[in-house]
Amino acid sequence: MPRVTDEHRTARREQILDAAVTAFAVQGFQATGMAEIIAASGLSAGAVYRYFVSKDQLIEAIVDRVLDEAAGRIEDLFAQEDSLDAARAVGVVVSAVASIADRGPVDFSRLAVQAWGEALRNPAVARIADRAYRRLRGVFAGVLRQEMEAGRLPATLDVPTTSAALLSLVIGFIVQRLLLGDVDPRSYAAAVAVLFQGATS
Amino acid sequence: MPRVTDEHRTARREQILDAAVTAFAVQGFQATGMAEIIAASGLSAGAVYRYFVSKDQLIEAIVDRVLDEAAGRIEDLFAQEDSLDAARAVGVVVSAVASIADRGPVDFSRLAVQAWGEALRNPAVARIADRAYRRLRGVFAGVLRQEMEAGRLPATLDVPTTSAALLSLVIGFIVQRLLLGDVDPRSYAAAVAVLFQGATS
Repeated sequence: MPRVTDEHRTARREQILDAAVTAFAVQGFQATGMAEIIAASGLSAGAVYRYFVSKDQLIEAIVDRVLDEAAGRIEDLFAQEDSLDAARAVGVVVSAVASIADRGPVDFSRLAVQAWGEALRNPAVARIADRAYRRLRGVFAGVLRQEMEAGRLPATLDVPTTSAALLSLVIGFIVQRLLLGDVDPRSYAAAVAVLFQGATS
Repeated sequence: MPRVTDEHRTARREQILDAAVTAFAVQGFQATGMAEIIAASGLSAGAVYRYFVSKDQLIEAIVDRVLDEAAGRIEDLFAQEDSLDAARAVGVVVSAVASIADRGPVDFSRLAVQAWGEALRNPAVARIADRAYRRLRGVFAGVLRQEMEAGRLPATLDVPTTSAALLSLVIGFIVQRLLLGDVDPRSYAAAVAVLFQGATS
C-alpha cells in the first residue's frame, strides 16, 4: 500500500468538504444524509468515513471553514480601508456578503443561517460560532475605537455591546437578503449611514 | 360517533401545536420526528395525523403561529407608546424578545432561528416568514415616518430599507443572545441609541 502524503490527505479532505458544503447549503444540515455527500464527493464511503467519522464532525469542519474564511476576509477588507466609520464598516461587510453569495452556483450565506440552527443543538458548533462571531465583533470594535479617538463617537461608548449591534446589522442583512430577497448592499449601507447620522446629516 | 365540535377541534389542534413547539424549539425542525411529537402530545398517531397530514404542515402551522404572535405583540407594544423614536423602538422589541424567551421552560426565540433555516428549504415556510417580517418592517416604518415628520430624521429617508435595518437589529439580537449569550436588552438598546445619535449626544 503506498504511503499517503499529507498533501494527498489535505486534498481529499477538501474534496469531501466541497461536496458537503454544496449539499448542506442547498438543503440544510439535518435534511442532508451522509449517502448524498458520499455520492457528491466521488469517493467511497470508506474513504469519506476515514476523514470524518460522523456527520456531526463534518458539520463542525464546515461551519469552522465557512466562518473562519468569512472572518479572515472581513479582517483583510478592513485592513485595506483607511478611516472606516461604523456605517461604512457595515457597508463593506454586507457588500462582501452579497458578492460572495452571488458568485457561485450555491449561495454560501445559506450556510451561516443553517449554522445558527445547528449551534442550538450541537455544542461543538456553538463553540465554533462563538469564536468566529467574537472575532468579527473585535474587527468592529477596532473601527469604533478609531471613531472614539477621532471624537466622532462618545468616549464613554460601550464598545463590546456596540460591536454586537454592528454585527446585528450584518446578521439581519443575511437573513433578510435570503428570506425576503429585497435588500441590496448599497441602499442598505446608505440607510445605516442615515440612521447613524440622524437629523444632523 | 359523537359529533366533534369546532371548539374541540381547535383545542386538539392547539394541544398538538403546544407539544410540537416545545420539541422543535429544543431540537430543531429536522432533528425532531413525528413519533416524538405524537408522544409529547398525549394523543394517538391517528388523532395527530387527522389534524396535520405531514410534519411539513405542522412546521408551517407553528412558524405561522409563533411569527404571527410575535408580530401582534410588537404592534400592541408600539400602540401603547407615545412618540417612540427608532432606537427606543428597537429597545422595546428586544426587551419583549428577552422577556418572552426567559419566561417558560423553553426559549421560543430558538424557533425563530430554526424557522429561517426551514424557510430556505420549504417555500411555504418562506412565504409565512416573508409576510411576518414585512409586517414587522411596517411597524418600524410607522416609527420612522413619525421621526421624519418631527424633523428628527431626513425627509428623504429610504423608509423600506431603513425599516429593514431596524429589523436587522432585532434579528441580530436574537442570534447573538442565543449563540453568544452576552447581550442584554437594556445595554443593547443603549448602544443602539448612542450609535443613532453619534457624537451629538
